[in-house]
Amino acid sequence: MSTYARHTCTMRTTSRIAMTDVTSLIEARIHQEGFHDGFCHLFCPHTTAGLTINEGADAAVAHDILGVLNDLAPASPRYTHAEGNSDAHMKSTLVGVSLSIPVDAGRLVLGRWQRVFFCEFDGPRQREIWLRFTEHPN
Amino acid sequence: MSTYARHTCTMRTTSRIAMTDVTSLIEARIHQEGFHDGFCHLFCPHTTAGLTINEGADAAVAHDILGVLNDLAPASPRYTHAEGNSDAHMKSTLVGVSLSIPVDAGRLVLGRWQRVFFCEFDGPRQREIWLRFTEHPN
Amino acid sequence: MSTYARHTCTMRTTSRIAMTDVTSLIEARIHQEGFHDGFCHLFCPHTTAGLTINEGADAAVAHDILGVLNDLAPASPRYTHAEGNSDAHMKSTLVGVSLSIPVDAGRLVLGRWQRVFFCEFDGPRQREIWLRFTEHPN
Repeated sequence: MSTYARHTCTMRTTSRIAMTDVTSLIEARIHQEGFHDGFCHLFCPHTTAGLTINEGADAAVAHDILGVLNDLAPASPRYTHAEGNSDAHMKSTLVGVSLSIPVDAGRLVLGRWQRVFFCEFDGPRQREIWLRFTEHPN
Repeated sequence: MSTYARHTCTMRTTSRIAMTDVTSLIEARIHQEGFHDGFCHLFCPHTTAGLTINEGADAAVAHDILGVLNDLAPASPRYTHAEGNSDAHMKSTLVGVSLSIPVDAGRLVLGRWQRVFFCEFDGPRQREIWLRFTEHPN
Repeated sequence: MSTYARHTCTMRTTSRIAMTDVTSLIEARIHQEGFHDGFCHLFCPHTTAGLTINEGADAAVAHDILGVLNDLAPASPRYTHAEGNSDAHMKSTLVGVSLSIPVDAGRLVLGRWQRVFFCEFDGPRQREIWLRFTEHPN
């Protein structure tokens, strides 16, 4: 087993704005690669999407978060960017595109209610998450 | 000394929303473990709390930040999440739950005015910060 | 070549609020140091500035992002912090001060439209970005 590896997860989002729980997708890659202890670095290579960690038990939480993000960065005719999706770029900067999560015994080390979400802000589109694993000897 | 170590800091928050300077708490753990150079990775395992770096010299800065966060994600009857704390989940996603901070000579490498804050958005509660140290030989 | 190195980039911002594309500046340091594969960790040591990744092809995107940030954290007489720049501190916490970006073959691994921006929220000032490179053997 190497101590450093690269992976890409691909996915198709189905609406303009959505939060998709990708925790199991990422853990499947960790298992497949045989990583045990260290860090999983997640990177969203898109400028109108992002990554966040929040509650996954009740889908209403993601629904409410997307509602507030629409309030904070509404679709609006006042933007100067000609593509008309500046609200999506703003949401990406508010949420962020990069996460570093510890891995213990082949599992993401998350709190009891935490799940990892891919945040689509200008879909539907084909999207990627770039993963890096760094193994740390104990 | 190992080159990788795990720690947990526990704390009790005393109000619904608060920013607590945890810089000294974290540096005490770095000192205790004997780490010198590398990275300290901080993770907040809660979905209604977060971690941020900002000014610690004047407590009014944290007060003003919490005021704006309450404006951006107000407590509101319109949320669908039945627990009624969607504002706290939103604040967590805006602030973030993960930080990677360099360590030089056993100290967090921060700017002159920077301090690390644990951000409580739905307290008072018992909370944790999960720490990982990775030592990098020079 | 060492497997861990520190660098500082210095820059002068020219207005109170601005987003400056620093991708080339950072890649020049990666090249200069001879780093190939691993991570570049960027840290903004200021409490009224930040770092974000977003679209760099059309300058209107940065303009629109700064406009929304001014809406979310407006300059306002209601702040308690005596320096009167609490809006800048708030923007720093919303955007974040730390980024970890993979490096492959001496280049930052970014999406097609992504660039790294230093975000000034209380300029003009002399500013720094602190860089750490960690090389990971393949």
